[in-house]
Amino acid sequence: MGKSLAESILSGERMALARLLTQVENGSPEGRLTLDELFPYTGKAHLIGVTGAPGTGKSSLVNQIALQYRRPTATNPKRVAIVAVDPSSPFTGGAVLGDRVRMRDLAGDPGVFIRLMASRGSLGGLAQATAAMVQVFDAAGFDVILIETVGAGQTEVDIARLAHTTLVVESPGLGDDIQAIKAGILEIADIIVINKADLPGVENTEHALRGMLGLAHPVEKVFRHHGQAMPIPGSEPANAGLWVPPILRTIATDGTGVGELMAAIEQHAQHLHQSGDWGRRERARLEAELEALLTGTLVAQFRASVSDVRYEEVVDRLVQRTYSPWEAVKVLMNGEA
Amino acid sequence: MGKSLAESILSGERMALARLLTQVENGSPEGRLTLDELFPYTGKAHLIGVTGAPGTGKSSLVNQIALQYRRPTATNPKRVAIVAVDPSSPFTGGAVLGDRVRMRDLAGDPGVFIRLMASRGSLGGLAQATAAMVQVFDAAGFDVILIETVGAGQTEVDIARLAHTTLVVESPGLGDDIQAIKAGILEIADIIVINKADLPGVENTEHALRGMLGLAHPVEKVFRHHGQAMPIPGSEPANAGLWVPPILRTIATDGTGVGELMAAIEQHAQHLHQSGDWGRRERARLEAELEALLTGTLVAQFRASVSDVRYEEVVDRLVQRTYSPWEAVKVLMNGEA
Repeated sequence: MGKSLAESILSGERMALARLLTQVENGSPEGRLTLDELFPYTGKAHLIGVTGAPGTGKSSLVNQIALQYRRPTATNPKRVAIVAVDPSSPFTGGAVLGDRVRMRDLAGDPGVFIRLMASRGSLGGLAQATAAMVQVFDAAGFDVILIETVGAGQTEVDIARLAHTTLVVESPGLGDDIQAIKAGILEIADIIVINKADLPGVENTEHALRGMLGLAHPVEKVFRHHGQAMPIPGSEPANAGLWVPPILRTIATDGTGVGELMAAIEQHAQHLHQSGDWGRRERARLEAELEALLTGTLVAQFRASVSDVRYEEVVDRLVQRTYSPWEAVKVLMNGEA
Repeated sequence: MGKSLAESILSGERMALARLLTQVENGSPEGRLTLDELFPYTGKAHLIGVTGAPGTGKSSLVNQIALQYRRPTATNPKRVAIVAVDPSSPFTGGAVLGDRVRMRDLAGDPGVFIRLMASRGSLGGLAQATAAMVQVFDAAGFDVILIETVGAGQTEVDIARLAHTTLVVESPGLGDDIQAIKAGILEIADIIVINKADLPGVENTEHALRGMLGLAHPVEKVFRHHGQAMPIPGSEPANAGLWVPPILRTIATDGTGVGELMAAIEQHAQHLHQSGDWGRRERARLEAELEALLTGTLVAQFRASVSDVRYEEVVDRLVQRTYSPWEAVKVLMNGEA
């Protein structure tokens, strides 16, 4: 007998890793068993979510972050996995994003593994599959897992919530309803990055973000000092343990500001450990995963208990407006019309 | 005894309508009962989804469409409801979007009702609440219901799927990962609108969209003729009943192209009726709503059957990696450790 798939992954075999990722993405039962076997080895990686509106250059920024972790000059370079969640459909192959620009600098580095995930039919599916991917990389010993999502919808927010540290990427001069999105997404930001900071309008963007951030974190007033958020001197923060998201400027295409960004990520990780938030986020993440699995299982179990004919009958009555949706639920759950 | 809330709504009282919308948005039990009472009166409105990436000028376009339906010159002006789903959080008040520009032309018209919906904690929540809002407007006798979503994530796609007719709005010259989003979202488009068509790059945008549309509808080749999609003469379409999404150009701010857009919307409604797709979409929509309600009910029921102490114990074991997430589900559902 050879090694099990889980054992191969624990001993660092890339082919085994790729195989499990595919099984997990397809939701296969073998994949699930291997995931169970690997689960005790998870919980060590730093999960970093990167989200924001389209057109902000997130992919380039994720590349740069990965490169920084891999610098040969680093005394202890980290192994980095990138999970890029691609909103394009299975039909377009999920290949639109990423391949184009991603690979040049990172290709061939055995300490980097990049996985693109195409969006699935169901939402739960995508967030769940992403969570499972992250578990695989965590067990396989990757120190840093970058979870990149394109877009700024609720899905992306949910996926970003998987992370210990969430970067929200903005860029100057986007359209007029961007503001609304920013306001919503700022609440999940641990670090705000204004990428493409060489574009005109960067001052306005930073000013607007600072205003919105003031709303989102009304307890503290912040000012910017060499790219780090600091409480205004002399005004002691009401809650000394609070993290105030710094606003940083980068130009991912030439690496400007990426060093400061790495420092902020490191500071945030330290803050999480010192404040106990690391453990709290870990727990919230696992609890969310449990709830999603429970929901899927309950629904599958219930659907198996109702015949298709019966279900279609109820839908017929719904379409005819004999039942309201709530009445249809009651009828299905009580097993009677 | 006065009239019931449902009766007041059926007789066209705006205050009653506003009250029910608030109840529905808050998920109150009275709201649910009134919804049940009104459900038999639904199924008449034309539901039009308007979605697309941020910055494309969707809100202005939705205004223009509403104005066209309300023209005093129209022999039979329609009553129009607008449900604008705002991705900003409850915290920012959901007021960022819409109020600013929306109201000037539509304010004071009793045949128009505009409702902004802030995004909720849970995804299911937002899609479900939107579906319920739409039902209320449908029962209240609005002929056209415009469902506007900002963003291009899966949520927005799910919400757009509520509609009979889905408009996907693009605009020239957006950022570089926009392409990925377009590819995904084009599949749900019944009509593609290039808004801000006076911006540079409109030819490139249309060319790119046409290429992607060719991929999404490989059966037919189309060319553009006065803004209407037509099969290429001499190449009979393989499936004569197929709708090929036209690509139209508009400038919402001055009304250019909006007349052609209205014609395309009308053609699509006719196509849906003639092909039987109207009924099929209606059924799919109600089935999705039933599934969402079932899921919510099953989960609530299950959680009520497990004590909080027990649930927390299982989460503890999960955090300690004693159970994998799947093992935790099994343990909770079997009631044993």
